[in-house]
Amino acid sequence: MGELSELFSPERIAVVGATEREGSVGQAIMENLLESFAGDVVPVNPSHEEVFGIPALDDIADASADLAVVVVPPKIAVDVVREAGEAGVRNVVVITAGFGETGSDGAAREQDLIEVAERYDIDLVGPNSLGIMSTPVGMNATFGPENATTGRMSFMSQSGAFITAVLDWANDQGIGFKDVVSLGNKAVLDESDFVEEWGDDDATDVIIGYLEGIDDGQAFIETAREVTRETPIVLVKSGRTDAGAQAASSHTGTIAGSDQAYEAGLEQAGVIRAESVQELFDAARVLESQPLPDTDDVAVITNAGGPGVMSTDAIGDSRLSMASFTEATLDAFSEALPAEGNIYNPVDIVGDADNERFRDALDVALGDDNVGSAIVLSCPTAVLDYERLAADTVELQAKHEKPVAACFMGGERVEPAAAALADAGIPNYFDPARAVKGLDALSRFRDISEREYQPPTTFDVDRERAREILSSVEGREDTRLGVEAMGLLDAYGIETPAGEIVDAPADALDVAERIDGDVVMKIVSPDILHKSDIGGVKVGVPDEEVYDAYEDLVSRARNYQPDATIIGVQVQEMVDLDDGVETIVGMNRDPQFGPLLLFGLGGIFVETLEDTTFRVAPVSEPEAEAMTREIDAAPLLRGARGREPADVAGVVETIQRLSQLVTDFPAILELDINPLVATPDGVEAVDVRLTVDPDQL
Amino acid sequence: MGELSELFSPERIAVVGATEREGSVGQAIMENLLESFAGDVVPVNPSHEEVFGIPALDDIADASADLAVVVVPPKIAVDVVREAGEAGVRNVVVITAGFGETGSDGAAREQDLIEVAERYDIDLVGPNSLGIMSTPVGMNATFGPENATTGRMSFMSQSGAFITAVLDWANDQGIGFKDVVSLGNKAVLDESDFVEEWGDDDATDVIIGYLEGIDDGQAFIETAREVTRETPIVLVKSGRTDAGAQAASSHTGTIAGSDQAYEAGLEQAGVIRAESVQELFDAARVLESQPLPDTDDVAVITNAGGPGVMSTDAIGDSRLSMASFTEATLDAFSEALPAEGNIYNPVDIVGDADNERFRDALDVALGDDNVGSAIVLSCPTAVLDYERLAADTVELQAKHEKPVAACFMGGERVEPAAAALADAGIPNYFDPARAVKGLDALSRFRDISEREYQPPTTFDVDRERAREILSSVEGREDTRLGVEAMGLLDAYGIETPAGEIVDAPADALDVAERIDGDVVMKIVSPDILHKSDIGGVKVGVPDEEVYDAYEDLVSRARNYQPDATIIGVQVQEMVDLDDGVETIVGMNRDPQFGPLLLFGLGGIFVETLEDTTFRVAPVSEPEAEAMTREIDAAPLLRGARGREPADVAGVVETIQRLSQLVTDFPAILELDINPLVATPDGVEAVDVRLTVDPDQL
Repeated sequence: MGELSELFSPERIAVVGATEREGSVGQAIMENLLESFAGDVVPVNPSHEEVFGIPALDDIADASADLAVVVVPPKIAVDVVREAGEAGVRNVVVITAGFGETGSDGAAREQDLIEVAERYDIDLVGPNSLGIMSTPVGMNATFGPENATTGRMSFMSQSGAFITAVLDWANDQGIGFKDVVSLGNKAVLDESDFVEEWGDDDATDVIIGYLEGIDDGQAFIETAREVTRETPIVLVKSGRTDAGAQAASSHTGTIAGSDQAYEAGLEQAGVIRAESVQELFDAARVLESQPLPDTDDVAVITNAGGPGVMSTDAIGDSRLSMASFTEATLDAFSEALPAEGNIYNPVDIVGDADNERFRDALDVALGDDNVGSAIVLSCPTAVLDYERLAADTVELQAKHEKPVAACFMGGERVEPAAAALADAGIPNYFDPARAVKGLDALSRFRDISEREYQPPTTFDVDRERAREILSSVEGREDTRLGVEAMGLLDAYGIETPAGEIVDAPADALDVAERIDGDVVMKIVSPDILHKSDIGGVKVGVPDEEVYDAYEDLVSRARNYQPDATIIGVQVQEMVDLDDGVETIVGMNRDPQFGPLLLFGLGGIFVETLEDTTFRVAPVSEPEAEAMTREIDAAPLLRGARGREPADVAGVVETIQRLSQLVTDFPAILELDINPLVATPDGVEAVDVRLTVDPDQL
Repeated sequence: MGELSELFSPERIAVVGATEREGSVGQAIMENLLESFAGDVVPVNPSHEEVFGIPALDDIADASADLAVVVVPPKIAVDVVREAGEAGVRNVVVITAGFGETGSDGAAREQDLIEVAERYDIDLVGPNSLGIMSTPVGMNATFGPENATTGRMSFMSQSGAFITAVLDWANDQGIGFKDVVSLGNKAVLDESDFVEEWGDDDATDVIIGYLEGIDDGQAFIETAREVTRETPIVLVKSGRTDAGAQAASSHTGTIAGSDQAYEAGLEQAGVIRAESVQELFDAARVLESQPLPDTDDVAVITNAGGPGVMSTDAIGDSRLSMASFTEATLDAFSEALPAEGNIYNPVDIVGDADNERFRDALDVALGDDNVGSAIVLSCPTAVLDYERLAADTVELQAKHEKPVAACFMGGERVEPAAAALADAGIPNYFDPARAVKGLDALSRFRDISEREYQPPTTFDVDRERAREILSSVEGREDTRLGVEAMGLLDAYGIETPAGEIVDAPADALDVAERIDGDVVMKIVSPDILHKSDIGGVKVGVPDEEVYDAYEDLVSRARNYQPDATIIGVQVQEMVDLDDGVETIVGMNRDPQFGPLLLFGLGGIFVETLEDTTFRVAPVSEPEAEAMTREIDAAPLLRGARGREPADVAGVVETIQRLSQLVTDFPAILELDINPLVATPDGVEAVDVRLTVDPDQL
């Protein structure tokens, strides 16, 4: 593929299928392009001599275009793109629908399109796209009713209709864009490509998007991590809920990956995920225009106590906190404010405050080193001029270079002030909670941009032995493995209790005698999943009972299921659960993001609460460490309630070793270590279950 | 007190302190009243002959007013109110500040005011109030810059500034009010009084409010329960977070009750609690104008797939669900929609849908018995007229009498349609999530209005024995009790394991021998809180070791703290925790709501997760039952993961018996039963701790 920047700054655009037919897509695109595009527009249509007064060409080959917009019927669209490719056009937007979204014929057509694009190295948007826009060159290559105004956000959307709605609204709100892309079916170019392009684009300050799915989660994470060092990404990824995922699947045919994978993957990618349209734009607007705060401590300056309390609640709900002022600031407030005011945060400058008192208080607050950002919160009063307050706010924000959020409450009287604030990149809200969320997004992005991503640790492991164990399922119908695969963990350096699987009672006794103390004995059979339910597990068996226990376990299994394959009996060292914390470490494969690691506390009480956390593998040490911190029950691992702390480092290492294992072997479809017992002295994987796809070995 | 309705519909209002002085409160109130009040306004001011052309009286006594608005300085305000009372004025609004909010002089003055109001049976608003409004009689008895427009919400606020901000905004939004009250210091009339009044008021359809505290939580619950059978109450109660509570306390001097108590109390009262200004009005607007849905199943009709998915997510986040259509509906959609549409919910009528297709689809959906409400969700297109869509939506909403939410996306082009929708009580939002929240509030209120509140069960208990045990702290410095108070639980019919406290080793053995199996022995001393830490608990002691164990426990205690008061040793039956679930039942007293009951699962794992729920006592059986259902770990009690279900009925009864105990004895300041062990065979309170205030016995 070429440079995507060419896609957004062509000099000559060919519209293949251009027409003047009223209500047609070809007409709408021609009109939109002719309206403001800085370069040349060339209609291509063998049935017309000219379109909108411009001579029409018969063939894209003669157009010398650097971008082709294709609006011909689906049956000839692939041929047109091939001709464009042959003619050396490297950028194509396929507006035409009737591809992957419409059944098997369409899917075959889309496959052809992809092959053509690959053969000719074409950067192809769509098919089934509303088109693209780029305001610096005045390009509106869409068939939508509105053009974007100039701005520094770039916007991609998997819904074309959403673009039309957003533009209609954004134009009234004074929100502008640099580029806009309707992703369509994402046959060639997808979200990762645009994130990468806009990350390199000096004219894009914020990347926003509406996505229903991410095609290649791993590639997206890699790209977005790099981009978000500088450029914030805010996305609505819909299909968050079960109902939503089902709706997304019927809308764009998106395969429903688990939202846990999206949640983890987007977090690891450094993306700020918005849950609604309002959140998307509230975050994007401040990220576009406001500086990042040095600290998370907010000063609230208000002429109204009640709304001051509301904003304090909103700050309490967020990652931010209320600033504690320096002595100098408190002294200044004491001097400047009337007795009934409040010099502590939220600073109540009282209802009779005029513009001067407001301005001075804000100046003092923003000048305090303990203050990272401020909220200017005002109710309408007879002595306060909102426009002057807006001008002062803008000036002081610029002077102190700290982010400021505005909450001038009221109706029409606020509008001129709000417009002045918006011009300076300070959005104004009636609701203090929304103002706070903007500051919260800035703080969030500051942390994201400062992240240091480490490569995953590579441990010295016995890969060959692991492969051998996994290969044991080859030729079998049932490709699940249980305790008989404990050696897999061993091969990857994950501690397991001493023990062996034996197939004779005398051998069981041999093993038991080599193990200190009583043992645990479990039937090993791929056909018996819930061993405990049939009495297939015996805990605390003394050596003298091992022989009989073996026979009892086997006969129970036989009684339960006469044709069960019985591999043998596992004789295992007892692990003392009293001193330990039972945890679970697991993995399943997500269709978009690949191996998704799970960590949580185990035992029936905690499992019921589903207190778990997820990461896309491979994970680095800090990511694995974070997993052990972010579950609710994390304090238990670290010795809450007077217990000795468990070997958290051992848990962290186990997560990383599992991460390496599942990354090395795509053949492992899912795997659970449950429990992984963490004691003060170390960790031990007591049981394992996995499913293997032998074709991927 | 008289009827509060008089306060809002006076015929003759005296303004004591009326003046024409520019910028004064007395001037502002006179002007506001003269602007539109339907009755007479009488200025009272001995320094003036007339005010705004109306002859001024020297004395309130001569005014024959049925409402007095007092704006005189604080020093004479109480005298004025007394004179009003003597003159038979039963309704007084005290605007004057300088009372309880300003230190001890002010507090004394407020106390005088309360006494005067009580003596003369005055319904008194304030002091420190912005005033009151009532639109049916055109009364604006505030000194704010805006008057309310006519509507069917009544609004109370503990922040006067917030009222001015809301009115300024609401007037632009077309949101009107019936009554508005600035509560001020709530010396006499408080939130419960207005809730009661508006509950009886046919002209009020929704009660909304901003509160920083509720003075008498129990009275509020009782009043609000009655009112919310018919009239929804939506409140912002600020000070939700720790930071917010601190800010509220410095703003209005509100004693910070725990937000857990507010959360529980407001829920029990049937109040819909909004977390922000936006939520407050979004909920209030639909509750004012839309019918309640029969079912929670929503139909989404849209011309845009992407926003359809977003609204489905929002429904997934809410208490609502996506409707499944009847066969007849699906057939109708199949016939009416193009092939690329979606006949299942969200119904995608496709981007080329004209008004007729939109109208027909909405008509079919609303006619489906499986559909409780609908969202009309539209992106702007060339073929769709928003004003016609609005008219159709309004008509179909009225025809089917089901709630409808609108989400016509776009900017200025939406405005005329949005205005038409608003006139019919259908708010329009750009963000589908907000539209869904409105429907969610309707569903919530339907459930609230259908609640059947039961009286708490009264169990047959031994109140005298309980009093005796509680009295044991009389004369003691340390008023805490531990296991020595197990008899208290026994007196209230809460099962405890067999056991006794003894003060000699031979007695210990006696007790142990009467108990089946091994016993638990614990040191009993008010000075030793953490018994386990000093080895003060022995579990599983066989009879032959009881004598020695007694001596060992006592000597450990002596070593730990030589001067500790040692009551003796508790010898208790062993409770088998393996079969049981450890729970916690407790109570502490909240300054506003009184006894606040807690229920949660116990054991160190679950306690760390703080999986608990709260109710204000006394609780009825259904409320106690709900507590056992609403914790996250509830399934464990009911036999999750293959366990036998615990005796949930026993837990429910224990919660109710504790509720009765702490209601009977305000002297119990806090009490914890931890653990209350629930097994399949019953429940047993294994340990108890409480603190007693002997002065309240």
